[in-house]
Amino acid sequence: MTDTTTAPVTVLGLGPMGSALATAFLAAGHPTTIWNRTPGRTAALSDGGATPADTVPAAVAAAPLVVACVRDYAALRTVLAGERVDWTGRTLVNLCSGQPDQARAFAAWAGEHGISYLDGAILTPTPTIGTAAGTVLYSGPVEIFAAHRPALAALGGRTVHLGSDPGRAAAYEMSLLDLFATAVHGIAHSFALAAAEQIAPTDLAPYARGIGDLLPEMIERAARQLRAGEFPGEVSTIASAATAIRHITETARAHELDTGALDATRALVDRAVAAGHGGSGLGRLALSVPR
Amino acid sequence: MTDTTTAPVTVLGLGPMGSALATAFLAAGHPTTIWNRTPGRTAALSDGGATPADTVPAAVAAAPLVVACVRDYAALRTVLAGERVDWTGRTLVNLCSGQPDQARAFAAWAGEHGISYLDGAILTPTPTIGTAAGTVLYSGPVEIFAAHRPALAALGGRTVHLGSDPGRAAAYEMSLLDLFATAVHGIAHSFALAAAEQIAPTDLAPYARGIGDLLPEMIERAARQLRAGEFPGEVSTIASAATAIRHITETARAHELDTGALDATRALVDRAVAAGHGGSGLGRLALSVPR
Repeated sequence: MTDTTTAPVTVLGLGPMGSALATAFLAAGHPTTIWNRTPGRTAALSDGGATPADTVPAAVAAAPLVVACVRDYAALRTVLAGERVDWTGRTLVNLCSGQPDQARAFAAWAGEHGISYLDGAILTPTPTIGTAAGTVLYSGPVEIFAAHRPALAALGGRTVHLGSDPGRAAAYEMSLLDLFATAVHGIAHSFALAAAEQIAPTDLAPYARGIGDLLPEMIERAARQLRAGEFPGEVSTIASAATAIRHITETARAHELDTGALDATRALVDRAVAAGHGGSGLGRLALSVPR
Repeated sequence: MTDTTTAPVTVLGLGPMGSALATAFLAAGHPTTIWNRTPGRTAALSDGGATPADTVPAAVAAAPLVVACVRDYAALRTVLAGERVDWTGRTLVNLCSGQPDQARAFAAWAGEHGISYLDGAILTPTPTIGTAAGTVLYSGPVEIFAAHRPALAALGGRTVHLGSDPGRAAAYEMSLLDLFATAVHGIAHSFALAAAEQIAPTDLAPYARGIGDLLPEMIERAARQLRAGEFPGEVSTIASAATAIRHITETARAHELDTGALDATRALVDRAVAAGHGGSGLGRLALSVPR
């Protein structure tokens, strides 16, 4: 096997994340070629030692590992289909965000075009790229991952291969973003309800932070309960959550605040109670999500 | 002022939380009288030194500080209205969970009946009561709080008075439970989406935990941004959240999972983008909650 620790790398797409990827490759000593659809974003990276390519075929020709970070799968297909690219001896690693089925469809398309392909999902924000905190998940053929792992390790401390299903990295990403987005809504709604009750955001924050501090343990407990298929209600029960949600919803309604997310939460909890799980722990709720 | 550090205390309601309160008072050396609507829950506490009272009037007569922890405001009113109680020289501290307007109405009712009254909200679970981690918020007349603070301090390390509005403790509790309940839904939905993609809960948990770890800082940042009225999008923008939510919603729909909370999140984010805040940080979302 070739030593790939300082193998040449190409980065397609130089938005904030693509630029962070190129910077991390350069910092790890990889000769780095860069390309962006709209020119003008290459100056700072060129000063840092990157080599701008004028065309996609030239960029792909410059390195055995081509890392793409454009807006989405459709945008990447447009970029790659626009010109005649020779992928012989090249691997494409696509780190755009998207849906598992989009990743699988793209992997099939890559296969039809003879492109060696890995799909990836970046879990941590741009400032973490190239640091120990940087986390990138990959899925696709393990031998392709193994061949390029040393180079990919330049992107962050956690470089994880999840298996051969090319949709798996995106599936993890979507599940995690689901939690993230819902929590973002919860934070916004919590501050909105507090404001309606004349509570200043900085007065609420220390207590809200305390709620945030509970989540990692709740997540671990839910996972353990789901694995075991047993849901002891020692810490908190679904029935007590049902009572709380009624009070919260009424309070939000009294202030004429939208209750869409609370209504969905209430529906989930009520469904679990109706099925006889009121005395169970909150982890049981994952099995009651309405379809 | 009387030394109240070991003043007698009465606890009305001996569910899991009421029992924890009585245990904490006993542990701090307070002569403790206990009462429960349905008998039979007093044995363990009596062994620990508590004195059971047969009636509410007798329980209230036994101590200057009466702490109530029954199901809700309506239940407490039933308990107190059922018999002739002499509240002369007594203070009622009500720690049941409920809505700010229920607390205000109850305080008015207490006033009409000549009852010195504080409303409270317990923010931490039963195992924390009587420990440094125990957190109880109070609202109502500051002089009543000041007189009983030494005894109430037995319940936990954080004993906080939020002001004279009797609904304020409940308002904090509802705002915090709003975040908690929505996050509980997010955790359940995240595991449900992962399961639909054949991801085991214990495989997802370490990464989901990482999302949980982000929340305290996000909460602090949102509070700072809301206080300043400025919402720099340096860490993440509302526009990027909008793109992510589209992908998550499509993924959930492909698995025929309910998308109620995601739809509410999408509506919130889209509303902020439509109002020109796509480049703003996520803290701005609290100002865009639909009414």
